[in-house]
Amino acid sequence: MAALTENADNSTAPTDEIGTTTPEHDEPVTDDLSDDERALLVDGVRYVLDGRWRATRDTVRAGTDRADLLPDPSRTLDEARARILAEMRELADHDFAAAGFGADHGGTGDVGASITAIEMLGYADLSLMVKSGVQWGLFGGAVENLGTARHHQRYVPGIIDLDILGCFAMTETGHGSNVQALETTATYDRDTREFVINSPTPSSRKDYIGGAAQHARFAAVFAQLITGGPDEEPESQGVHCLVVPIRDADGNDLPGITTGDCGYKGGLPGVDNGRITFDNVRVPAENLLNRYADVEADGTYISPIENPNRRFFTMLGTLIRGRVSVAATAGAAGRKALTLATRYGLLRKQFDAPDGDDEITVLDYLGHQRKLLPLIAKSYAIACAQNELTAELHDVQTAAADRAQTDPADQERQRQLESAAAGLKAYATWHASAAVNTSREACGGAGYLDENQLSIIRDDIDVFTTFEGDNTVMTQLVAKELLGAYAEDLRGLSAGGWVRFIAGMARDVVAEKTAVRQVVQTLLDSSDEDTENSSLADRGTQIRLFRNREDHLVRTCAQRLRRAGEDDTDAFEIFNDAQDHLLKVGTAHTERVVLEAFVQAIADCDSRSAADLLAKVCDLFVYSALEADLSWFLMHRQVSVERAKAIRRGVNSLCQELRPHARTLVDAFGIPEALLAAPMLEHG
Amino acid sequence: MAALTENADNSTAPTDEIGTTTPEHDEPVTDDLSDDERALLVDGVRYVLDGRWRATRDTVRAGTDRADLLPDPSRTLDEARARILAEMRELADHDFAAAGFGADHGGTGDVGASITAIEMLGYADLSLMVKSGVQWGLFGGAVENLGTARHHQRYVPGIIDLDILGCFAMTETGHGSNVQALETTATYDRDTREFVINSPTPSSRKDYIGGAAQHARFAAVFAQLITGGPDEEPESQGVHCLVVPIRDADGNDLPGITTGDCGYKGGLPGVDNGRITFDNVRVPAENLLNRYADVEADGTYISPIENPNRRFFTMLGTLIRGRVSVAATAGAAGRKALTLATRYGLLRKQFDAPDGDDEITVLDYLGHQRKLLPLIAKSYAIACAQNELTAELHDVQTAAADRAQTDPADQERQRQLESAAAGLKAYATWHASAAVNTSREACGGAGYLDENQLSIIRDDIDVFTTFEGDNTVMTQLVAKELLGAYAEDLRGLSAGGWVRFIAGMARDVVAEKTAVRQVVQTLLDSSDEDTENSSLADRGTQIRLFRNREDHLVRTCAQRLRRAGEDDTDAFEIFNDAQDHLLKVGTAHTERVVLEAFVQAIADCDSRSAADLLAKVCDLFVYSALEADLSWFLMHRQVSVERAKAIRRGVNSLCQELRPHARTLVDAFGIPEALLAAPMLEHG
Repeated sequence: MAALTENADNSTAPTDEIGTTTPEHDEPVTDDLSDDERALLVDGVRYVLDGRWRATRDTVRAGTDRADLLPDPSRTLDEARARILAEMRELADHDFAAAGFGADHGGTGDVGASITAIEMLGYADLSLMVKSGVQWGLFGGAVENLGTARHHQRYVPGIIDLDILGCFAMTETGHGSNVQALETTATYDRDTREFVINSPTPSSRKDYIGGAAQHARFAAVFAQLITGGPDEEPESQGVHCLVVPIRDADGNDLPGITTGDCGYKGGLPGVDNGRITFDNVRVPAENLLNRYADVEADGTYISPIENPNRRFFTMLGTLIRGRVSVAATAGAAGRKALTLATRYGLLRKQFDAPDGDDEITVLDYLGHQRKLLPLIAKSYAIACAQNELTAELHDVQTAAADRAQTDPADQERQRQLESAAAGLKAYATWHASAAVNTSREACGGAGYLDENQLSIIRDDIDVFTTFEGDNTVMTQLVAKELLGAYAEDLRGLSAGGWVRFIAGMARDVVAEKTAVRQVVQTLLDSSDEDTENSSLADRGTQIRLFRNREDHLVRTCAQRLRRAGEDDTDAFEIFNDAQDHLLKVGTAHTERVVLEAFVQAIADCDSRSAADLLAKVCDLFVYSALEADLSWFLMHRQVSVERAKAIRRGVNSLCQELRPHARTLVDAFGIPEALLAAPMLEHG
Repeated sequence: MAALTENADNSTAPTDEIGTTTPEHDEPVTDDLSDDERALLVDGVRYVLDGRWRATRDTVRAGTDRADLLPDPSRTLDEARARILAEMRELADHDFAAAGFGADHGGTGDVGASITAIEMLGYADLSLMVKSGVQWGLFGGAVENLGTARHHQRYVPGIIDLDILGCFAMTETGHGSNVQALETTATYDRDTREFVINSPTPSSRKDYIGGAAQHARFAAVFAQLITGGPDEEPESQGVHCLVVPIRDADGNDLPGITTGDCGYKGGLPGVDNGRITFDNVRVPAENLLNRYADVEADGTYISPIENPNRRFFTMLGTLIRGRVSVAATAGAAGRKALTLATRYGLLRKQFDAPDGDDEITVLDYLGHQRKLLPLIAKSYAIACAQNELTAELHDVQTAAADRAQTDPADQERQRQLESAAAGLKAYATWHASAAVNTSREACGGAGYLDENQLSIIRDDIDVFTTFEGDNTVMTQLVAKELLGAYAEDLRGLSAGGWVRFIAGMARDVVAEKTAVRQVVQTLLDSSDEDTENSSLADRGTQIRLFRNREDHLVRTCAQRLRRAGEDDTDAFEIFNDAQDHLLKVGTAHTERVVLEAFVQAIADCDSRSAADLLAKVCDLFVYSALEADLSWFLMHRQVSVERAKAIRRGVNSLCQELRPHARTLVDAFGIPEALLAAPMLEHG
């Protein structure tokens, strides 16, 4: 199909039209495959998407291919909550939860499998995923990663088999993103060797806590730890975590505890979010999760990590499993919504065909393709990046389990992992929201009926942009780390303090880069530095465009912020004036990382036809990402006007090229068929 | 505050920085007003927003300033439905509904008041608005506008006082947007002088019909009217509307009728959407709503409108009241969500201020301002355009009530009204979805709790992009009419047929324009044609940029489509390849119309301080609209790179300039205080 042009005057530009230049496209996967060939192709593509924990995926698929796991909107809040807890108990019976815990205290120590399994639950019911994530990932993760042997022995087996139901009491009514400013206090009483947990203000109430409304009997409570040695005035040593019993076996609040119910929410009815207020509740000193800090009998505070900021962020850093799970599950939710919408788009017909024979299949309209196919392509890219993130988390946490994390290389790797997790969490959850909203709208009235699931997914996924780290804060965190070049002690500074720090930095520190992976280096080496005169269909050129954007943004943002050292302008004002620039740094960085992960996954793919198809999908991801940010590329003269038009045309022609493979692309997501139950897919 | 620049090299460009050039900005409304001054300013701005039916707004405000009208998520589906019906009965007691009906059969004939009142219900509960809209606007509107005296006398009083509950049975499972392809049949039986209503296929089932699940006893059924004269083979005369009783007084389906329940939906639980299947149901011949067509006793089909296409679209055209109400209510929902989020953003603090005194108010962050303030500005612009649309509908329908609509000028005005309604419906409902989603996210976890309303509004508003005309189809309709220059008989053509028609048109027909309103002409006359060398802060330049974009898009789209006449390429393929271009034509047109309505409203504003503030809001609307489409302006050399950067900076500085007026801007929406009940606004 000839690409149409608004102006035909771009003959001097390099050929950017898709499918005409790169060798990968010389033998495109054909459009009309036999059923067997298509099934093979689906398998080949799915193998890539499934990644290192593909066996885990298959196990969960086999165990969840049941429509009775789907949310049922007719349940009352109590019924929905009880149902999800019952499903968790069923999962626990099947050794589902042990993966996330160390082998020496009841687990199997396979962090990647744990994350992957939780992600796969997202295909069934996001309430099930979230409540499982709270119990085994957040509460369990706090005990596992912040606690020591005494906690592991006492709590982990019960956490795995659900004898000990817990919640993760970090967020307060007054503070979510700014964890260091939490107001709950845990004051050491050396006379009784206890901690006194207290909520000193209305805004210190623990809020939105999953499990706190009904089911949790224990809470991992984050509080300012107030203590001092024999000759010291007690003072806050910063935020620490303690295990606090909150309910008795009958579900009644323990003395001094007042729980509340957040009630009806935008979605996730199976998760009992609630509130907790502490009125001088006493717990034994050993309830402090003391891996990184402890209080001696006389009240002396001790920690192997001297710097309070580094200590705090080291503790928080061990908890990123939740954030990684949320990103992973958002990916799954987006894929499921796009699968439902694509299948409907292949069934639904509307308006006459030109020859009047039959109506036109909705997905044959370019406008409809443009709604769904770029989102599918982005889902592929994100899935590849997610697989890498999950694997890195697994490797880091597996390696770190026996080490004190004092090796600077370990610390650096941990910090990069946290930054990657923050970036992908924001990028993947915003994408999921867009994918689900678009999918709902693409199915019209049918999409609005709960029987077709999309409206339920839409409700449930909405808060993923908020919890486990607000997306704006996460994106900014990525940018700040990039600009700060991972400088020690940088975190925890106020905006103004951080800007003053940046301003004082040597210029070249910012330019420091993480290592370039081999497959990317090879592509860069074989492509021309002059992107404008290279084919846009060339993968190396594509990577260069993403890299150049990131470099330019980082460099210019640093220049703006350095002004804080040059004149008298208020440091916060300088930070704030550059905030949109800063956020763009974070997104551009993550998008580059996502692209390179996709490129890696294609390079590692052994099936020629699968790799061919994935290369086209990658092209669509690149072209639509460029199109979405085209004004930036034009404004900064990274692409010419002619190339910009070619990018727009490229999205159109790639949509049309991928249209015959739409079903293959969503089938390769490998969503259990029973979980795709939707009457609209029966009658079109 | 000095605008920061990435590059300081744009000294040769005209001054685009806001607040420095235009006389309107010489005396800006001051930032620190006394309480009395601020109240005056709120009143002045609200007066503009309230528009012609401000008295109606105040009446509804007084009657709905009650928190008990807010949705209660703890209600079961049955309870929610019963509650909304009860609220409607209460409204009906207060003469609420009579405005939409002619004075000669029980109404008061004030169409504008009717639309405005329904819009205001959106501040309370969108289920109440939708169900009221179905009863009085859609079902009532069909009887009122498609029926004749016999129907008005028989039904209208009961429709007004809810003795006759009805539904609007247009959409079928198989056809929503393509109304001409509906499959339900109404076959005339001359022996009994009856119509036989039938659902011949599964896809002909009436679906998503508000009221059909439980409450409706009558349906306005759209069906292919099959009849023929004594010597003719009966055939379809196209889609017509008949009143069909569907339930008895006890709520049981009448013989031949099978109703179903759409059950749980993404939102709007108070609306009982359902399905209807007809098994050869007989109704008397007089149940045909026969204003535009009738069947004589012998089966002969007669109509004053000869052309079947024009007849069909004339009938549909009288029903746009529903579409206009939906657009208006979406505006209200967006304003309410933005009000809640803005108030929360003014209370909520997070992260340290540079001097460490207190935390920073969230709305003081540029990133947060950028989320909310451009959406507020767009809400203002849309509100002004909506007021004009409502007034035009009122004037057209009031004038047309006694005329046969055979005057070509009337027809032209009606057609322009329909196009404007389609365009604003899409533009306003997409905006509302964006505004509500962003508002929810801007309130973090608090935004996800139903007690704070945003999650409920989000659920309820979602389907507004779909019902009363799918937004993509609506946007395309605007573009097709623009390109077809409102040619007779153009509607109803298939995509291919339409493209062939366009291809055959004379080139200059496309360039034809509707009249330019005086205030816009004056601004254009006093501004420079060379937009690049005029100040961007100049209103005339701003309008030129919007107009030039529209003109360019229309012209180039027509060129692309004309190729259908030049070569052998399949006409549908040409249409389809240009579909993204076509959709952009529709949006650009509507955005220009919206801007000009805003400009008009400001010109008509007598309060200097209100006009000052509105001018700034209008600037932000313009700058953020330009920023959102910056790649197009750059690609088509409508703005330079330097100007593009100035636009981005302009959005930032306008956000900072409007920040002190944020509360004033949302207070001026005039939402009854009791309807803004939200615990998050009590504790921050």
